[in-house]
Amino acid sequence: MEYLKQCILKDGKLKPGNVIKVDSFLNHQINTDLFLKMGAEFKRRFADKNITKILTIEASGIGMATIVATFFDNVPVVFAKKTRSSNISLDVYTTDVYSYTHQIMNHIVVSKEFLKAEDHILIIDDFLANGEAVLGLLELCRQANAQVEGVGIAIEKGFQKGGKLIREKGIPLESLAIIDAMDDTSITFR
Amino acid sequence: MEYLKQCILKDGKLKPGNVIKVDSFLNHQINTDLFLKMGAEFKRRFADKNITKILTIEASGIGMATIVATFFDNVPVVFAKKTRSSNISLDVYTTDVYSYTHQIMNHIVVSKEFLKAEDHILIIDDFLANGEAVLGLLELCRQANAQVEGVGIAIEKGFQKGGKLIREKGIPLESLAIIDAMDDTSITFR
Repeated sequence: MEYLKQCILKDGKLKPGNVIKVDSFLNHQINTDLFLKMGAEFKRRFADKNITKILTIEASGIGMATIVATFFDNVPVVFAKKTRSSNISLDVYTTDVYSYTHQIMNHIVVSKEFLKAEDHILIIDDFLANGEAVLGLLELCRQANAQVEGVGIAIEKGFQKGGKLIREKGIPLESLAIIDAMDDTSITFR
Repeated sequence: MEYLKQCILKDGKLKPGNVIKVDSFLNHQINTDLFLKMGAEFKRRFADKNITKILTIEASGIGMATIVATFFDNVPVVFAKKTRSSNISLDVYTTDVYSYTHQIMNHIVVSKEFLKAEDHILIIDDFLANGEAVLGLLELCRQANAQVEGVGIAIEKGFQKGGKLIREKGIPLESLAIIDAMDDTSITFR
């Protein structure tokens, strides 16, 4: 998606260790125009799917998921919560997700009430790198017997394993910008 | 706002200790229709304000703030991040916010880059009870010399002190539903 790539090139900040900071438009400050354009683009890419619910994970997926929902007949959004507590209620689906950014293990939880076998789920998140968060959300859907219709990502780091792992499962994955290579000074999109 | 009150009466779950769970439509699962109606209502109530940015706090404020932004000429949204780390960078505004829900002290931070003296801020959050979160956001705006044009809240617990504290500062506060009294079986709206 051209507009997103322009935002990345213009406002993304490259840091050592294959890190790109996009907090001026994606995950601290939100470019609302961009989010609306991404919502329309996800609707175009998943036009043939009958989505009944958007699933994401706190915190930075929530804004995108909520805007995306307005392009899919205002379906509900559910966001998985992160907790480090091991005191997990029986009323939730839960799994472990390792955060490479913060180097901690989080449990993620969704109330059983809000994820059902009859749901057709579109998973939305801002970033896909090693795939930990999305694989965790897929696991919650598996526990609920919910049908995952697709995964929509803003920025995929194509040189890390997440995209490959999800595509190998046969799940439709649409990333609006895929970075195939980057260093301290330049970015190559797929 | 009548529709929000209906959602509270229909889907809110009353718990002992003046607790109301609204996670089926406000802060775990999101009722997208409701959020769009709330966005339109905030626009109506703050129609005379020239808002340049929406400020909220992770996690449950983000979805609402992002939808609200679409009613204010797609201004950017900034969400304050919570951290328990005392290792705070010099590039951020920060203050302490006590969470009564989780009984912990969080530091909240916003990058100095995203909150400026020229900003006209509308603060948005899902809940107002003792006012800790909103007072923290007001403090970040004070540090940035940003102009706060108003505070928009979905549900205010009118019997707790937050609303009074904010109104006493002379800041326009609009809460779409104000609960004046509640017990285990009933709710009284203002």
